[in-house]
Amino acid sequence: MAASMGKTVSRANGAALSASPFLRACRREPLPSPPVWLMRQAGRYMREYREIRERTPFLALCKNPDLVAEVTVFAAERLGVDAAIIFSDLLLPAEALGFRLTYPKGEGPAIDPPLRTAAGLGRLREPQIEADLGYVLEAIRRTRAALPGHLPLIGFAGAPFTLASYLIEGGGSTGYRHTKSFMYRDPGAWEDLMRRLVRLTADYLNAQVAAGAQAVQIFDSWVGCLSPLDYRDFVLPHVRSLVGAVTPGTPVILFGTQTGPLLKQMRTCGATVIGVDWRVDLLEAWDIVGEAGLMGNLDPAVLFAPRKEVVRRTRELLARASSRPGWIFNLGHGILPQTPVENVLALVETVHAWGGPR
Amino acid sequence: MAASMGKTVSRANGAALSASPFLRACRREPLPSPPVWLMRQAGRYMREYREIRERTPFLALCKNPDLVAEVTVFAAERLGVDAAIIFSDLLLPAEALGFRLTYPKGEGPAIDPPLRTAAGLGRLREPQIEADLGYVLEAIRRTRAALPGHLPLIGFAGAPFTLASYLIEGGGSTGYRHTKSFMYRDPGAWEDLMRRLVRLTADYLNAQVAAGAQAVQIFDSWVGCLSPLDYRDFVLPHVRSLVGAVTPGTPVILFGTQTGPLLKQMRTCGATVIGVDWRVDLLEAWDIVGEAGLMGNLDPAVLFAPRKEVVRRTRELLARASSRPGWIFNLGHGILPQTPVENVLALVETVHAWGGPR
Repeated sequence: MAASMGKTVSRANGAALSASPFLRACRREPLPSPPVWLMRQAGRYMREYREIRERTPFLALCKNPDLVAEVTVFAAERLGVDAAIIFSDLLLPAEALGFRLTYPKGEGPAIDPPLRTAAGLGRLREPQIEADLGYVLEAIRRTRAALPGHLPLIGFAGAPFTLASYLIEGGGSTGYRHTKSFMYRDPGAWEDLMRRLVRLTADYLNAQVAAGAQAVQIFDSWVGCLSPLDYRDFVLPHVRSLVGAVTPGTPVILFGTQTGPLLKQMRTCGATVIGVDWRVDLLEAWDIVGEAGLMGNLDPAVLFAPRKEVVRRTRELLARASSRPGWIFNLGHGILPQTPVENVLALVETVHAWGGPR
Repeated sequence: MAASMGKTVSRANGAALSASPFLRACRREPLPSPPVWLMRQAGRYMREYREIRERTPFLALCKNPDLVAEVTVFAAERLGVDAAIIFSDLLLPAEALGFRLTYPKGEGPAIDPPLRTAAGLGRLREPQIEADLGYVLEAIRRTRAALPGHLPLIGFAGAPFTLASYLIEGGGSTGYRHTKSFMYRDPGAWEDLMRRLVRLTADYLNAQVAAGAQAVQIFDSWVGCLSPLDYRDFVLPHVRSLVGAVTPGTPVILFGTQTGPLLKQMRTCGATVIGVDWRVDLLEAWDIVGEAGLMGNLDPAVLFAPRKEVVRRTRELLARASSRPGWIFNLGHGILPQTPVENVLALVETVHAWGGPR
């Protein structure tokens, strides 16, 4: 990778950024081909990333603004995608709330002690974004400074439900038993928790925008574990207030997996773009989200197919959806660790070759 | 539990069975309240089951027809549900195909060696249902003999995709990377594998019907990991031929999780009843499956709520759907291991109390 970057004088070019395919797609302007970026585009599938991780534990990497800028910029330039997304983790705010956050080798993240009762709410710290998460903001400033002036940078945070599920389960989960029990047993405490997380997340996202992000993505990755009625009662109002609290003018991407049956509700949250996974048909999803833009939705597992098949499937999606303004090409979830880099490159090239020269 | 049962003289009463709420619902006859049974109703959440498992490993239990009859009948009678489902496991046919099948303590099932290449197909054994899976058929005969004569017994098997995913991954999976790679890389070998599994599964289900099951359920539990287009190309035709090969007159329940976006296709398979998880709105799902019956769909996590809330949510579902003929009340997936038995009983009582005395 490039040598460590300490520059903080931004090369951001407002006019060029505004004319970038990514921000034009967010405004639903017609384009010959959709912009493309890929969730987890800086990650384990890249040799250069693995080399950095061999000497730097995950959390230390997240807290090192120079290294974060390096992996963020490197991935965007190596792939030639139309947006960078700040390298970070949606669990970092857990520390700001007073939890112990660790990433045991070979396992998912661990949050200690898990938040299992209403009483636990009283022990949450009142987070101070600058003091507690300033390293993310500094990483955004340095990344913005190092990125080509025309390339948009996306900030992000976990949505209140998804963040809460980690806090309550103490890490990842398959059944979300503790999270749902918490909701069902004590709806008042749940409401309190959601409000705190909305406040924290809104402040956090807006600080990222102030630090130099051109757009933000809200990851409600695990919300698809809920029934539509539970989503309506326990989640929707909070996502809506979060989206409404983002700095006006900033495009907001609202993403989740397994959200097919929730899209009708998600579209009412006011997000600029709705991100969907591969489990829904892209055009059917779009008919549901209506006026919003759409991001997605190739199955990340397709990248394990032979290169020819990757290209064929990418083109198939392009043929179906590229005439519709407001589409951002992406995978339906993050790039999987063992993905061959050459297939990722083939995907990006195929999207860019669509519709003639840019 | 009751003493070991060796009886094989069936008390099955054809007329009473045919008039049972479960089979009437399968025929979409109007009923004052829906029949109810629960996936994994014989399982770890029951003390009596755990006691048997303390002295009997899982696979040994599945292969002991007397014990299988005991746990199957005990669960149905303890809960007072409207159908029994044979206690078994959808991976048993893996042994018949020549795989080594184990259930390491505290982990998911393991299948060895995993089927990763087309060449592996040539090494599959040609299964003989009576010789290889006769213990399941004997368990069905003994269960049928021990069950009250009016209570339907459901047989089951894994659907071709779900079974294949276990064979290829070597056990459970989160991303189904190997399964999808197999499909994408060698569609011909995939087709061959699907055809073999359809043949095996059809024979297996029909043998269960011959042994005394009144209905069968096809578990395509993991098919929701596929995009709608992959479902169409790689799965749908095989599910359709499997359903079509079941002994005429036998109600077939086709169940999967995360299938909201697949229901439109699933309805074309010819199944009598479509089973859905809690991620879809029951009435919206029903509008999609149209003429078929519907099974579902309370979130199993609801059973961790206070009893009052379990009752309230059960009634809410009943109020929404019970006027529609062809509904079988069930959870959206299996009962979770730590579920309080008293909440399961409350659920069943609430369903039965609906619409006046039966």
